[in-house]
Amino acid sequence: MFEIKAKDGLGRIGRWQVGKKTVETPTIMPVINPGKLIITPREMRERFDTDVIITNSYIIYSSSRLRERARRKGVHAMLDYDGVIVTDSGSFQLMQYKDIGVTNEEIIRFQNEIGVDVATSLDIPTLPDEPYEKAERDLETTLARAREARALRDGPLNGTVQGSTHLDLRRRSAREMAGVGCDVHPIGAVVPLFLDYRFGDVVDIVLTAKQELSPAVPVHLFGAGHPMALSLFVLLGCDLFDSAAYVLYAKDNRYLTVSGTKKLEEMLHFPCMCPVCREHTPHDLLAMDDDVRTRLLALHNLHVTYEEFKRIKQAIHEGTLWDFVEMRVRGHPKLYYAYRKVKEHADFMARFDPLVKRSTAFYTGEETAWRPIFKTALSRARERVKPYQTVAHPIFGDIPASLIHTYPFNMEMDRELEADVPERTMVEEIADYQFGHGAGARLCTGATLSHSRSDRVRSIMSGDEVVATVRARDGLLILGTEGQTRLHEFLAPPHYRVVVDNEVASYAEAHSDVFSKFVRGIDSGLLSGEEVLLVDEGDRLLGSGTLLLAPDEIPHFKRGVAVRTRRGVEAEDDQS
Amino acid sequence: MFEIKAKDGLGRIGRWQVGKKTVETPTIMPVINPGKLIITPREMRERFDTDVIITNSYIIYSSSRLRERARRKGVHAMLDYDGVIVTDSGSFQLMQYKDIGVTNEEIIRFQNEIGVDVATSLDIPTLPDEPYEKAERDLETTLARAREARALRDGPLNGTVQGSTHLDLRRRSAREMAGVGCDVHPIGAVVPLFLDYRFGDVVDIVLTAKQELSPAVPVHLFGAGHPMALSLFVLLGCDLFDSAAYVLYAKDNRYLTVSGTKKLEEMLHFPCMCPVCREHTPHDLLAMDDDVRTRLLALHNLHVTYEEFKRIKQAIHEGTLWDFVEMRVRGHPKLYYAYRKVKEHADFMARFDPLVKRSTAFYTGEETAWRPIFKTALSRARERVKPYQTVAHPIFGDIPASLIHTYPFNMEMDRELEADVPERTMVEEIADYQFGHGAGARLCTGATLSHSRSDRVRSIMSGDEVVATVRARDGLLILGTEGQTRLHEFLAPPHYRVVVDNEVASYAEAHSDVFSKFVRGIDSGLLSGEEVLLVDEGDRLLGSGTLLLAPDEIPHFKRGVAVRTRRGVEAEDDQS
Repeated sequence: MFEIKAKDGLGRIGRWQVGKKTVETPTIMPVINPGKLIITPREMRERFDTDVIITNSYIIYSSSRLRERARRKGVHAMLDYDGVIVTDSGSFQLMQYKDIGVTNEEIIRFQNEIGVDVATSLDIPTLPDEPYEKAERDLETTLARAREARALRDGPLNGTVQGSTHLDLRRRSAREMAGVGCDVHPIGAVVPLFLDYRFGDVVDIVLTAKQELSPAVPVHLFGAGHPMALSLFVLLGCDLFDSAAYVLYAKDNRYLTVSGTKKLEEMLHFPCMCPVCREHTPHDLLAMDDDVRTRLLALHNLHVTYEEFKRIKQAIHEGTLWDFVEMRVRGHPKLYYAYRKVKEHADFMARFDPLVKRSTAFYTGEETAWRPIFKTALSRARERVKPYQTVAHPIFGDIPASLIHTYPFNMEMDRELEADVPERTMVEEIADYQFGHGAGARLCTGATLSHSRSDRVRSIMSGDEVVATVRARDGLLILGTEGQTRLHEFLAPPHYRVVVDNEVASYAEAHSDVFSKFVRGIDSGLLSGEEVLLVDEGDRLLGSGTLLLAPDEIPHFKRGVAVRTRRGVEAEDDQS
Repeated sequence: MFEIKAKDGLGRIGRWQVGKKTVETPTIMPVINPGKLIITPREMRERFDTDVIITNSYIIYSSSRLRERARRKGVHAMLDYDGVIVTDSGSFQLMQYKDIGVTNEEIIRFQNEIGVDVATSLDIPTLPDEPYEKAERDLETTLARAREARALRDGPLNGTVQGSTHLDLRRRSAREMAGVGCDVHPIGAVVPLFLDYRFGDVVDIVLTAKQELSPAVPVHLFGAGHPMALSLFVLLGCDLFDSAAYVLYAKDNRYLTVSGTKKLEEMLHFPCMCPVCREHTPHDLLAMDDDVRTRLLALHNLHVTYEEFKRIKQAIHEGTLWDFVEMRVRGHPKLYYAYRKVKEHADFMARFDPLVKRSTAFYTGEETAWRPIFKTALSRARERVKPYQTVAHPIFGDIPASLIHTYPFNMEMDRELEADVPERTMVEEIADYQFGHGAGARLCTGATLSHSRSDRVRSIMSGDEVVATVRARDGLLILGTEGQTRLHEFLAPPHYRVVVDNEVASYAEAHSDVFSKFVRGIDSGLLSGEEVLLVDEGDRLLGSGTLLLAPDEIPHFKRGVAVRTRRGVEAEDDQS
């Protein structure tokens, strides 16, 4: 069960419930070698609040000692860890050794027996650039095994997307796997691409799969855990990552940073404030025994990874994930070029990316202009507004001058734009941009404008009634009761409406948030972040709110809020 | 006394000696309010290895209690700190209050009395955009006071560059101040520009001043301490920064990061691993008493600042400072636009930036192509090489195909370039690129090529004698004894020569590094990073080495190495 708490791009802060345990995503699942615990899961929990780990059921199964211990005590007691334990199945070993002497049924039954939280069937990871026919054959085996696993298991199950670098096979894999009814979708066999810095291929694979998967099932980018690449793949909709890198790199004296890997022997200082780096110098570490050094480097590597997830979540919360990624991709040219491929997938991404963010966008290079949602914003501005005046926007070209303080046209650039538009016209055109041509005239008929202390337009008033307020942070209109009524009369259904189940209409009317499961219909042209009208099944007006999810997302979610309502415009704390 | 240990751009890792104390630059000088120690200098030393602080002699002087304590005990005992103490003079107060009731002579004598390490005269900080005449008048006062201070003080002295936003006054200020004989050059009155995010104006001011100042005197960007902007200004040649921001921001519940400032109340998590952030959440801090919270935020702010200097120094060491800055400037559009102004100063910067770096350059956007030194490299390639074949380089345009593995043409991009050039031709053309047309033919006459195990060309051999080896990391030639001889015959003086004082010629001949103070002449067309010939004053060949400083830098330095020699080519550990 998965629920979205905040969104930016295709990235989301999610609440993933696994049985009675809850994991906040996006996050990393450290890979635990059950035969050799360099850092114990308990220590990870204490140091990093690790609430999910991944280990390999095949390795446990192949060692008679581990197998018996796991059967006797269960995997949680064996690893001394009460968080979520995900297990892989031996697929990785299959990629290396062809035959591993265990069947899909055996490994699924074994995972059931030892009590893992999320199990994996014995999928076939097809390497990049394998012939199409082989990849297709492997894929069919993978799908058959996933279906078998689904029948053999009651609990949460991974449904891995394969298909090598053949995008139509990745698409088919995702579509068919989505039909199996899995709880997580790993995207498999991308490790060789990461090792070759083929990030652009991974972008194509992830976005192809995302188009076919349910947005309500978390996606795990299998084998990806370098902190440098995390933010890009979160932006593209990956929720879970795993990392053996923290140990593998440590064994090789490699030190992870958010902008790449450094060799310990080439480092002057540790540019990090984690306890390892504060207490030691590169020189100290090189003088230590291998085991001690590996453990310390592994700890640093985990520190820097968890720290990066905090930054990524903060960026989603602020609506600055695109800006953050545009900074991070400068860590490596291959990552930068991979980011530029996002342009090719703009239409898909624009369906899910919020049209409105909490923060003004930053212009930091030509790629900024390619953000998918900006195209939508610009075409709305051009189609809906008949401008009193236009200005040449350095990024967007000619735009209505009335929108210069409105997201995303209010972008931070080298200079401020100036407009000479009467205030009333400005407000009307903002309304037209938001709700369609004519909405502005309707909202402003017979209305007056009130001003803030700094003399900016604060509200459109009709007598004592608030028609709408202008939100200072993004220059968009928030509807008051009178505005809701006017807009509801002006716009024919289904425009700008979210239809709420009659059974809960009274709650929505009393300003309770509207949960996805009670949404009975929606204007499919809406985007998340928009101001919308709430109506019951008979189109009776209930109020207004901010649409948090995209129309294509809502039907998939059994949990979580679809429309955030507000207790009247007076309570809106963003006005100034 | 200042010495350069490593360079990149105009940035340098320096060893700054103040009396018997030594400070490694670039670094931050935390501003200490002598009346209220929120974090004591001793605690800073323990936590951050703080080896220099800055405080205000005027504040000490204006309080009878502090003045007497300082006179009695000295400023070091008063602040309980044995590192370098720099003092400002009250100029800042002058900017705010016009008259502060103390003379230049009084404040200099007072700084002498209390034993500060680096004193400051009472310069006049002229605000940005002040009328030219006022700025000029202020500047003349500043210069007169600096001269008076120089006469009144034996020890180290700041010589502050003023001139408001009038670049010709900044230029004059720097030129005349350089003549006063100061030990540090602060660049003053830029705080109002920083507060308005006018980073582009600061770029112009810094680069204008740098053109007139001695490279052997450290430059202090006065009042600049936000971690977001540090790397850019280190790249432009600033060595010292100071920060009251760590406390001022903390008092205002603002949290510093390398990509901007965050408001505590808008933070979900602390994206940082410093002890403060590991032990507390934003929520915790907001619930604390103001004093406790301020202290903790101030500690975090210092942590993040010192951590950034470690990254910056590591980047200089690796030769990746440009790449690092191109990532950091994406933290804010105004910083990004400021970075783009570097293009306007390319000719100046290209004189000092090393032509060769330890690391391959990363392409991360059109600005990468504008790096000043690339223009030099490209024009050398086009003028010196008559190519067997050319390839279209995505960044540089047509280049000799033989240089695709040579810095900077070996840049990391989205694809690898391919060349079909006979190896001998390739090596000859690399030599022509490095040393001028014809050098390749001369070095390769009668020579054979030896290969590495991976079948790349390793060396040019003449019988058993090494003419040159190809350094794997940058594809450049390192001269062997035979190559030195051939090049010395081929190139007429002063080409590619560094002339060593006859008195130390025998040391250079025995492969000792050559110190700046013993350089008697140099080919002024050379750039730091180049492979050069060492000769005595009679043009007798002594050996070869890597030029560490630019020809325009060497005469200014009394300390430090100008040419790094090597114990023969065999000892070169970069070959493969």
